[in-house]
Amino acid sequence: MENNGLEEELNKINREPYKGVRDFYPEDMFVQNFIFDVMRKTVISFGYIEYNASILEPTSLYKAKSGEELVEEQTYTFTDRGGREVTLRPEMTPTVARMVAKRKRELTFPLRWFSIPNMFRYERPQKGRLREHWQLNADLFGVKSIDADVEIISLAYTLMKKFGAKDNNFEIKVNSRKIINSILKDFLKLQDEEGNRLMKLVDKREKIKQEEFNAELSIMLGNKSDIFSKMLKTKNLLDFTSILPKEISESEGVKDIQNLINKLNEIGIKNVVFSPDMVRGFDYYTGIVFEIYDKNPENSRSLFGGGRYDDLLDIFGEEKVPAVGFGMGDVTIKDFLNTYNLVPKYNSSVDLYICTLSNEYISTANKIAFELRNKNINVEVNLTDKKIPDQVKIASKKTASFIICIGENEAKTEKYKIKNMETGEEKEMGLDKIFDFIKSF
Amino acid sequence: MENNGLEEELNKINREPYKGVRDFYPEDMFVQNFIFDVMRKTVISFGYIEYNASILEPTSLYKAKSGEELVEEQTYTFTDRGGREVTLRPEMTPTVARMVAKRKRELTFPLRWFSIPNMFRYERPQKGRLREHWQLNADLFGVKSIDADVEIISLAYTLMKKFGAKDNNFEIKVNSRKIINSILKDFLKLQDEEGNRLMKLVDKREKIKQEEFNAELSIMLGNKSDIFSKMLKTKNLLDFTSILPKEISESEGVKDIQNLINKLNEIGIKNVVFSPDMVRGFDYYTGIVFEIYDKNPENSRSLFGGGRYDDLLDIFGEEKVPAVGFGMGDVTIKDFLNTYNLVPKYNSSVDLYICTLSNEYISTANKIAFELRNKNINVEVNLTDKKIPDQVKIASKKTASFIICIGENEAKTEKYKIKNMETGEEKEMGLDKIFDFIKSF
Repeated sequence: MENNGLEEELNKINREPYKGVRDFYPEDMFVQNFIFDVMRKTVISFGYIEYNASILEPTSLYKAKSGEELVEEQTYTFTDRGGREVTLRPEMTPTVARMVAKRKRELTFPLRWFSIPNMFRYERPQKGRLREHWQLNADLFGVKSIDADVEIISLAYTLMKKFGAKDNNFEIKVNSRKIINSILKDFLKLQDEEGNRLMKLVDKREKIKQEEFNAELSIMLGNKSDIFSKMLKTKNLLDFTSILPKEISESEGVKDIQNLINKLNEIGIKNVVFSPDMVRGFDYYTGIVFEIYDKNPENSRSLFGGGRYDDLLDIFGEEKVPAVGFGMGDVTIKDFLNTYNLVPKYNSSVDLYICTLSNEYISTANKIAFELRNKNINVEVNLTDKKIPDQVKIASKKTASFIICIGENEAKTEKYKIKNMETGEEKEMGLDKIFDFIKSF
Repeated sequence: MENNGLEEELNKINREPYKGVRDFYPEDMFVQNFIFDVMRKTVISFGYIEYNASILEPTSLYKAKSGEELVEEQTYTFTDRGGREVTLRPEMTPTVARMVAKRKRELTFPLRWFSIPNMFRYERPQKGRLREHWQLNADLFGVKSIDADVEIISLAYTLMKKFGAKDNNFEIKVNSRKIINSILKDFLKLQDEEGNRLMKLVDKREKIKQEEFNAELSIMLGNKSDIFSKMLKTKNLLDFTSILPKEISESEGVKDIQNLINKLNEIGIKNVVFSPDMVRGFDYYTGIVFEIYDKNPENSRSLFGGGRYDDLLDIFGEEKVPAVGFGMGDVTIKDFLNTYNLVPKYNSSVDLYICTLSNEYISTANKIAFELRNKNINVEVNLTDKKIPDQVKIASKKTASFIICIGENEAKTEKYKIKNMETGEEKEMGLDKIFDFIKSF
């Protein structure tokens, strides 16, 4: 009885992962690896090189910029047994800034760096907002000119194309913090605090009712609220600047945007739109900001984005290093791929599955497998005592391209019937021919 | 002054990673990726498929098997704001057991699964024993016969060979928990508790003095200590069994080992030795255990190991699933590669670096880059206003294979001098020829 009680208790051990995180079974991992492979190959094709760091960071790294309260509310932060405060990183940018600051004197700029880290945020789990996700981070450090922004945005564009998206599936929204700041300060004459509140309102514009937005705007801006509203709605730099006084319409921010759009057009990227109402959440941006926007009418939304952040090394007391970059999350991009039917069919990479008529042929199968694996053929050997049709079923589930079966005859003659699992064709040959045969497909 | 004070405080933000974890700068990541690639390709060549899970697990997963105290002493465990106890996984086996238990009815056995997760242990940082490391975990679920043990050990062997090790660099020590248990119970007549203490003593044998070991052994075993000592030292199954009474020397465990060694020899794996003194730490092993042992006379030691653990799903109240597997850590294998000079030279994968005579040629460079990237050539474009020799230096640091420079002439004629960075040779050609030229190397 006691034993039963114990067993019952053990039964209760939860088989579910922790709340808000995911298990990746092989089929899920296949999709995840597809996403990571496309990310990795694409950024490498632009000359970006990979770095990484631990998920555990000293909490001080986040407190300086975000403040104590935000860190404690929104991150996984705890104290280790040595009394050190540690945080599971909520984003990668502070980490990369730390690493660059540490070796600033030894590194050769410009740096093109990328990483695909996981990160944690403490929040209520909901669609697309899990507690843990992975994110491609690509950053270009050390180039002040708009050419860096052009490269980073064309990298984001190329990523979308490599994932199989068409130009008309998405839009690249661009804006500049310089324009935003100059409107807030020079045109609307707002204090920092008021400006921030206004930007927060603009940021949530699509989530609240039009009347509510107008009412709040009117309280904040008085008689300038109409012109500001009009400005937000323009999709064209000319229309936009025609509303503004000359000192703003001819400012650096406006020229940057004009330049950026021209240069992107020149290399064939045409789905770029100036979006004065697009302001990115993070407060460290200092210049161009951009967003890749899903145009799917049923679910139009921001997929990912980034921008220029030239002041980031400030917190380490380092000289400024110009920087531009973005982060692309795995969850959002997976949703996008599913929507547009762009996820490839599961495939396990098994080239050849060797069935065995009985256990005594496993050694022969292993010898063949060893020889072929040495030539970069992926070979799985049956080790069960299942019947041949059941072994073939397993091979088929594992998406093996070819099978051979080993029995008395094959072990003796060293001739094997190799079967193409797709066409059903069979052909008999010796081991020396199997390699060439498989490689010819 | 206030501002200065703030700046000074900000200066203090630590640029070091958290204690006992590593930053991976691109050169480090290159080595890490080399290790992961060899691991991944090799296990895939045996038909293993990848899974993953979050680093955060409910603490209950570890408490059942290891006990509350051990979990709290040796892991990173904390309580989230919802009152849930969570742990940064210290090993992957409980996670994979949880995942298999959860979908046991839907999964098609046998399963060949692998993962390369990171894991945390709370311990004093020392060489090869960091607080965070990565580990290849390969497991074969659902095969009872010794053929599964043969496959797993031959996979471990193949990994060593793929890393560039020679047969005489390492040794595969094998033993069986069945033999150990039968010696403890049937021959030495020890209770479980006594047996455990004896095994712990054997496990630390190489770390303590011979006299100390003998003294402790004598206290534990009395007049049987000499014969036990002799037994431990044999390297040969015959010598070993000749010491033992028949009911043990003819037991299943001994037959397993004999079978295992024969079958490994048959497929060409000869550096296997029976090692009765090799007992693996984890208490979940139930059959064959093995260890890959570095034979370097200056630093002979265990590199990694594994074994059979048929009872693992017990804690979920599930039927037994036969299982055999191992874990191979990145830190130990990196040490091994360094010792034997097996780490490849850093290479960034940049095929072509495009220098630009001035900023006005960046658009032309970008256009060329776009076209070549579409054909899977990795191209980096200079965006700086550095002089050409400095750009060439950067290209060389990035280990680019080829460079071209774009100036007025090149932009006009659309002919480019492509330089082979290794041989120094130069050749002029149009864009249409560059692809074939680079691919021909």
